Amino acid sequence: MNLLERYRQVRSTTESLAAPLSAEDQLLQSMPEASPVKWHLAHTSWFFDTFVLEGLPGEPAVEPDRALLYNSYYEAVGPRVARARRGLLSRPSLDEVRAYRRSIDERMARWLEPGRLPPARTHLVELGLAHEQQHQELILTDIKHALHANPIGPAYGAPAQVGRAAARAITWRRYDERIAGIGDDGSGFAFDNERPRHRALVPGFELASRLVSAGEYLEFIRDGGYRRPALWLSDGWATVQADGWLAPLYWSQEDAGWSVYTLRGRRPLDPAEPVCHLSYYEADAFARWAGARLPSEFEWEVAAGEASAEGAFLESGALHPTAATADGPAQLYGDAWEWTASAYAPYPRFRPEAGAAGEYNGKFMSGQMVLRGGSCATPRSHMRITYRNFFPPSARWQLSGLRLARDP
Amino acid sequence: MNLLERYRQVRSTTESLAAPLSAEDQLLQSMPEASPVKWHLAHTSWFFDTFVLEGLPGEPAVEPDRALLYNSYYEAVGPRVARARRGLLSRPSLDEVRAYRRSIDERMARWLEPGRLPPARTHLVELGLAHEQQHQELILTDIKHALHANPIGPAYGAPAQVGRAAARAITWRRYDERIAGIGDDGSGFAFDNERPRHRALVPGFELASRLVSAGEYLEFIRDGGYRRPALWLSDGWATVQADGWLAPLYWSQEDAGWSVYTLRGRRPLDPAEPVCHLSYYEADAFARWAGARLPSEFEWEVAAGEASAEGAFLESGALHPTAATADGPAQLYGDAWEWTASAYAPYPRFRPEAGAAGEYNGKFMSGQMVLRGGSCATPRSHMRITYRNFFPPSARWQLSGLRLARDP
Amino acid sequence: MNLLERYRQVRSTTESLAAPLSAEDQLLQSMPEASPVKWHLAHTSWFFDTFVLEGLPGEPAVEPDRALLYNSYYEAVGPRVARARRGLLSRPSLDEVRAYRRSIDERMARWLEPGRLPPARTHLVELGLAHEQQHQELILTDIKHALHANPIGPAYGAPAQVGRAAARAITWRRYDERIAGIGDDGSGFAFDNERPRHRALVPGFELASRLVSAGEYLEFIRDGGYRRPALWLSDGWATVQADGWLAPLYWSQEDAGWSVYTLRGRRPLDPAEPVCHLSYYEADAFARWAGARLPSEFEWEVAAGEASAEGAFLESGALHPTAATADGPAQLYGDAWEWTASAYAPYPRFRPEAGAAGEYNGKFMSGQMVLRGGSCATPRSHMRITYRNFFPPSARWQLSGLRLARDP
Amino acid sequence: MNLLERYRQVRSTTESLAAPLSAEDQLLQSMPEASPVKWHLAHTSWFFDTFVLEGLPGEPAVEPDRALLYNSYYEAVGPRVARARRGLLSRPSLDEVRAYRRSIDERMARWLEPGRLPPARTHLVELGLAHEQQHQELILTDIKHALHANPIGPAYGAPAQVGRAAARAITWRRYDERIAGIGDDGSGFAFDNERPRHRALVPGFELASRLVSAGEYLEFIRDGGYRRPALWLSDGWATVQADGWLAPLYWSQEDAGWSVYTLRGRRPLDPAEPVCHLSYYEADAFARWAGARLPSEFEWEVAAGEASAEGAFLESGALHPTAATADGPAQLYGDAWEWTASAYAPYPRFRPEAGAAGEYNGKFMSGQMVLRGGSCATPRSHMRITYRNFFPPSARWQLSGLRLARDP
Repeated sequence: MNLLERYRQVRSTTESLAAPLSAEDQLLQSMPEASPVKWHLAHTSWFFDTFVLEGLPGEPAVEPDRALLYNSYYEAVGPRVARARRGLLSRPSLDEVRAYRRSIDERMARWLEPGRLPPARTHLVELGLAHEQQHQELILTDIKHALHANPIGPAYGAPAQVGRAAARAITWRRYDERIAGIGDDGSGFAFDNERPRHRALVPGFELASRLVSAGEYLEFIRDGGYRRPALWLSDGWATVQADGWLAPLYWSQEDAGWSVYTLRGRRPLDPAEPVCHLSYYEADAFARWAGARLPSEFEWEVAAGEASAEGAFLESGALHPTAATADGPAQLYGDAWEWTASAYAPYPRFRPEAGAAGEYNGKFMSGQMVLRGGSCATPRSHMRITYRNFFPPSARWQLSGLRLARDP
Repeated sequence: MNLLERYRQVRSTTESLAAPLSAEDQLLQSMPEASPVKWHLAHTSWFFDTFVLEGLPGEPAVEPDRALLYNSYYEAVGPRVARARRGLLSRPSLDEVRAYRRSIDERMARWLEPGRLPPARTHLVELGLAHEQQHQELILTDIKHALHANPIGPAYGAPAQVGRAAARAITWRRYDERIAGIGDDGSGFAFDNERPRHRALVPGFELASRLVSAGEYLEFIRDGGYRRPALWLSDGWATVQADGWLAPLYWSQEDAGWSVYTLRGRRPLDPAEPVCHLSYYEADAFARWAGARLPSEFEWEVAAGEASAEGAFLESGALHPTAATADGPAQLYGDAWEWTASAYAPYPRFRPEAGAAGEYNGKFMSGQMVLRGGSCATPRSHMRITYRNFFPPSARWQLSGLRLARDP
Repeated sequence: MNLLERYRQVRSTTESLAAPLSAEDQLLQSMPEASPVKWHLAHTSWFFDTFVLEGLPGEPAVEPDRALLYNSYYEAVGPRVARARRGLLSRPSLDEVRAYRRSIDERMARWLEPGRLPPARTHLVELGLAHEQQHQELILTDIKHALHANPIGPAYGAPAQVGRAAARAITWRRYDERIAGIGDDGSGFAFDNERPRHRALVPGFELASRLVSAGEYLEFIRDGGYRRPALWLSDGWATVQADGWLAPLYWSQEDAGWSVYTLRGRRPLDPAEPVCHLSYYEADAFARWAGARLPSEFEWEVAAGEASAEGAFLESGALHPTAATADGPAQLYGDAWEWTASAYAPYPRFRPEAGAAGEYNGKFMSGQMVLRGGSCATPRSHMRITYRNFFPPSARWQLSGLRLARDP
Repeated sequence: MNLLERYRQVRSTTESLAAPLSAEDQLLQSMPEASPVKWHLAHTSWFFDTFVLEGLPGEPAVEPDRALLYNSYYEAVGPRVARARRGLLSRPSLDEVRAYRRSIDERMARWLEPGRLPPARTHLVELGLAHEQQHQELILTDIKHALHANPIGPAYGAPAQVGRAAARAITWRRYDERIAGIGDDGSGFAFDNERPRHRALVPGFELASRLVSAGEYLEFIRDGGYRRPALWLSDGWATVQADGWLAPLYWSQEDAGWSVYTLRGRRPLDPAEPVCHLSYYEADAFARWAGARLPSEFEWEVAAGEASAEGAFLESGALHPTAATADGPAQLYGDAWEWTASAYAPYPRFRPEAGAAGEYNGKFMSGQMVLRGGSCATPRSHMRITYRNFFPPSARWQLSGLRLARDP
C-alpha cells in the first residue's frame, strides 16, 4: 500500500468511527481530558494542515481561527482554546468540519502523488497518520465516557452476541536475565519516544500467560481490595477515598450481579473477559494482592519479542476486551493496554523530533506511566513491539488492564 | 385571547426563539447556571406533563427518564440529573425533544378545549405559561453566554442597523412619603412571591428619569471605578479582584475603542444605550460613585404605578437595550432589568403555592436581590407592575442594568 | 464611670478572657473566618493606635509593620496580611503583643484625662470600646472553634456544675400592627448601622416567650429535619448535603446520647437549654417545621421595647446558654443571638461613619442576615435594643439560636 | 560510638535545632506538606514508642491520644489527625511534648544498655534514628517556609558573615559505559528503598564538576527562562503559569538587585552560591536551556563511588549552600540535594520492611523524583552513597538544586 492509499485508509477509518454519532453526540465533552469527536475530526486535519501543507509551494497558511480552535498543545504554533472548553465549539458546525476534512484530503491527495512531496515531509505524513490513529482510539474512549455520563446510558454501537467461555488458567513463563535491545531499530515508522534503540540489563523474570480477568478482579474486590490501604500506593489510596472508587470504571453492582457499560451498552459482566478501565493504582494494588507485581516495560518488550504481534484490535469490531482463547503468552497485543511498572521517561540519549513536532512526546515525560500492547480500540497497523503509550496513574477512561509478572 | 390561544402563542414563541440555532448550538452549556436551549425546550414541556397532565383522567404518568432528565429543582418530584451536566444530554436528540413538545401540545390542546380542564388545574396552566415565558428569556441569555464562550464569537441573529442618538439628560422626579399598597391585587395571574398585597411605609425619594447609560458607566470606569475599593461592597470588591472584572460582561476594549458583544454579534459600544450585564455589586458601586443609590423594590413599584407599562420588550426584536427616546420616567419597563436595593424576601404572611409548585419561588428567598421591570428579552405579556425577578448579586449574564434613586 | 474608667474596664476584660490561654492556644486559627486570640489582642490595640492616637499632637504614626499585620479590612488604611494567614504570625510574640497593648494603654490614659482629648475623637474612643467588646465575643467563639478542632477536645475553662430544670412551655404574645420607631435615638453610643431612627409599618404578629430549646430541636432532628428538603431554603439544603450536617455545630451523638461541646468541655446535652450554634438555614428550617417563622428584626425590636434589657450575658460566667427560668418574654437578651428573617441592609437614608471608620459596617450590607439580642458571650454594656449583629446564613460558630414568631 | 551514645546524640541534635524557636514558632504550619516543629518533636518520639518500645516486656501500649496526634501516615497503626491540621494542636503544650520526649529517652536508655534489647529491635532503633535525622532536616525546611510566610520575614538564626568568592568554572568528567553495582551492600544501616543491591547497565556519560550556581541560574532567568514554554515539561509549564513562578523559592528582585531569604534572614544573592529551592521542573528546564540534562540516579551513584563523601552538612552550621571552593567533582555531598532524572521506583526484587514499618518508603513510589547527596541541613552521619531522597516534581521548599550531566 503506498502512502496515498494508506492516507486514504486511515482518514476513512476515522470517519467511519464517527459515522454512528449525531452532530449532538459529536459535540460532547464530559471532562477536560476527553475531547468532542468533532474536535478530533478537525484537529487531525489541522495537524496535516500545519505540519505537512503549510509552507509547501502554493499552499496557504493555516487559517488563524483553525489554529486557535484546533491546536491541541503545541506552544510553538501559538495560542489555542482551553482544552476544557472544546465542548463549547458548536461553530464551526459538524458539516463545516467535514468540509474542512475534505479540503485537506484533496490538497493532501495532490501532494501524495508519487514524487511530489519533498522527502523531508514524508516523515511528517507518517507522523500525521500515526497521530490520527491515536485519535481513533481516543474517539472511542472519549465518546464512551461522554455517553456514560448521560443517566439514560445510551450506546455507541448495537449490542452484539457475546460468546462466553471460561478463562484459561494463568501459567507462567520464565525469561532469563539478559542484556536486551530496547526500542526502535529504524526499520519503519516509530515515534521519537521509542528511540534510540539501546541496551538494558533485564534481570530474570516470569510473566503471566494472559491478562487478568474480570473474575479474578472480582475476587480482589470481594476480598476487600478497595478497603485495605496496605495494598495501595499512598497516592492511590488517597484517590480511592477521595473519588469513592469501589470497582473499575463502568462496572456497576445491582441486585442481579455485576454489569459493565460497554460501547454497545450495558451488559452482564463476563468473568472470563479481561478487566479493563483500571487506573495504574488499581492495577498495582491488584498485583500486590495477588502476590505478584506489574512488569517493567522492558520485560514486556522482551516477552513480546518472542511472541506474534497478533491480537484483538480495532478491526475485530469487538469494541470490548474478550476472553483469552489461546495458550500463553496470549493477549500481549490488543484487547486491553497493559499498565507497566515503568515511569514514562526518555530513553538514554533521547532527542525529540525537530521543530514544533518535538512537543509531541518529550514534554509529557513526567508524572505518567507506560502502557504497552494496544487494545481492542487500537488499529492493528498502529501497533508495534516498541510502542510506548502513557497516561497519568489515575486515568481510567482508557482500555487499560494488566498482566502479572513476578520474580523467579 | 382564550387559554388555548395563549398556550399556542407562548409555545410557538419558544420554538421561534430556538429556530435560528442548530442542534449543536442547542446543546451548549457554558456554565452550571445556564442550560442548553434543547433542555429549555424539554423542561418547559415536562412542566405541563408533570403539573397539569399527570393525574388527569386517562393521562399517563410522566415517563421516568423524562422526570430524571428534565426536572429542574423540584425535590418533591424526585431525583434529577445535576444541573451542571445538562450539556451532556446529546440523547434524546433535538428531534426527539421536538416530538415530545408536539405530543404535549396535542394532549394539552385537547384539555384546553372549553370546559374540559378541571378548574383547579387552570391556574397551573397559567403558571406553566408564565414559567415558559421565563425560560424564553433564559434561552436568549443562556445562548448568548454560550456563543460568547466560543473564541470566534458567533452571533445568534443577523446584525441590525442601529440608529444612534444622544441620551437625554437624567432628570429627577420626587415621590412623597406614603403608605403604599405593594404586591398583587388578584386581578390576574401572579406568582406566589408577589402576594399577599400589603401596605408598606415608603419614605419620600427621588428617581432618575431613565436607565444609566453606557456612556455614564464609561465615566465610572475611567474614574477608576474598578480600582477603588471604597466604592464597593466588601463581597463585590472581593469578586472584582478574584474574577478580574474591568468592565461589564461582554464589553471589550480594543485600540478602536469599546465594543459590546450582543446577540447580533460584536459592535461598537453606543454611549447612549443603557448599560447592562451588570452584577448587583457593579450597579451598587456605580450608584455610590454617582452620589446616589439603588431604589428599593417598593420605590420602584410606587413609581411604576404612575407610569405606563410600555417599553422595549422581546417583541421589539432589538435583542439589546436601546437609548431612551422619551422624557422620563422612561424605560421603567423593558430594555434592561433594574437591580433594586431589596433582598429577595417573602412579603408579610407569604404562603407558597400548594404542592410541588410551592418550590417555584419560596425556597430561593435567600442570598438574592430583586430586579424589576423586565428587559428586551422579556415577553411583554409576561411583565406587570408587581413582578419580582431575582438573581444572586454576582450574576451578570442576565440583561441587568440600573436606575438611580436618591433621598430628597 | 468616666471614659478612662470604662476604657480600663473594657481593656482588662479582654485580657482576662485571654488569660486562661497559653501562647500556643492564642496562635490558633482554625478557619479563615476566625482569628487567633493574640491577633484580637493586637488588632484591638491597633484600632486605638490608628483611629484615635495617630494624628494627635506629639503622637507617632502607626508603625508600618503593625498596620500590615493588625489591620483587619480597612482598605483605606493600606495593605494587610491575608485574613486566612493570621495564624502564621508567631512573631511578634505574645509577650510583644502584650507590651504593645500596655504602650497603647499608657498613651490612651494620658489622652483620656479630663479635657485633653479633642471632642471629635471622643466618639472614636467609644467606637474603639464597642469594637473591642465585639472582639471579646469573637475571642470566645473563635477559640471554641479552634480548641474543638483538636481531636482531644481540650476545654477553655473548668467544668461547671450545671443545674437542670425543665424548660417552661412556650407561650405566645400578640403585638398589634403599628408604625414603629426603629433604630438609634441618639441618646448614647450606637453604630452607624443602627441609624437613622425611622418609622416602619410593622404588621401584627405573635412572638414566642423564649428561645427554642435543645429538646425541641432534637424533635426536629428525630422527625427527619435534616433529611427533608421541603423544610429548607434551597441554599440551605445544598449546604446540608455538601457539609454533611446532621445536627447543630458542637453536638455529637454517641451511644450514651447527645452531648455538646462547650467552652468548659463536652457534656451531656440538656434538653432545656436553648439550642445554639445554628446557621440561619437551620433556624429557618426549624421554624418551618414548627409551623412558624423567624421574626423580622423590626418585630424583635418592637417586642424588646416592651421588655427589660436583662439577660444572661458574659458577666454571668456561664459561657453557654441556660434554660429560661422566667415567664416570657424571656431571653430576649443574652444566652444566644436570635436569627431574624431580615437581610442586613441599610436603614433609609443611612450614612456611614466619616473616614476609614466608614468601612466598619456599611460595606458588609450584602449577603448577611441580622441577629438580635446578644449572647452569653456578649458584655452586658455592649448590648442595646437597637443593636444589629450580622453573619452569613451559613455561619454556625457564633452563639446563634432562634425564637419563633407567627402571624396572628 | 555505641547505640545508646548515638541515640543520645541524635536526640539532642533535634532538641538543639528546636531550641532557638519559641512555643509559638514551633506551632506554625504554613502548608499541608510542612509540619510544626513541635509535631516533629513529638512524632519522632512516638516512632520509638510505637516501633521499638511497645510490646517489650513491661512497656505500656502507646497512649491512644498520642497515636491519634503523632502518627504520620501509618495506616496499619490506626487513624490519625489530618496532616493539614497539625498546626491546630496547641495542646498538648510544648512543655508536655518535651516531657514526652524525656520519658521516651528514659525508657529507651534502659533498653539500650548492653544486652537488653532483643536483637530484632536493634534494627528498629537504627530506623528510628535515621527517621529522626530526616525530621531534623524537615524541622529546618519547614520552619524556614513558615517564618517566610510572615510578612515581616523573621529569621531562624542570627545573620552570619559570609565570605564571597567567584565560583570555579564548571569542568566535565567522563565516565565510560559500565555495568554498575547499585544500592546497599549490607555493610551498615540503609533504608529498604536502597535494596537490594543489583547490577544496572549505565551508558557512558559526563558529569559537571559542581552544582549549578545562582549566577548561572540568573542567566537562565535573564534569558527568559520562565517565559519560554519550549524549555519546560508540560506539567512544569502549567505550574509556572498557575503559580506565577518567576525565580526560585525565596528569591526576590528589588531595586537593589536579587536577594535570597535564608534561615539567617534575607541577604543579597551571591552569584557563586549554589542555586537551591528549585522544583524538579525548574532543574529540568535549566538543564535543557544549558544544552545538558539531569543525571540519572545511577549516574550519580557511579560518580559518587569515585569521590570522597565529604561536604557541607548540617554540622557546618552554614544553614545555606556555599560556593564550591575545590576542583571537581565537588559538592556531590552536602550543600544542596541534587534532582536526578530518575523517577522514584522500586529496585528490582525490592521488598519493603516487615510490619507497619513497611509503609516507610514503598507506598510512596509513585509520582516522585529521586534526589541524591544531601544538603547543608542533612546530618553528616545520615548520608551515604546509596541514599535515595524523593519529592514530588513541584516541591520547592527543600534545599534542592542540581548538577548537570551530558552525553559524551
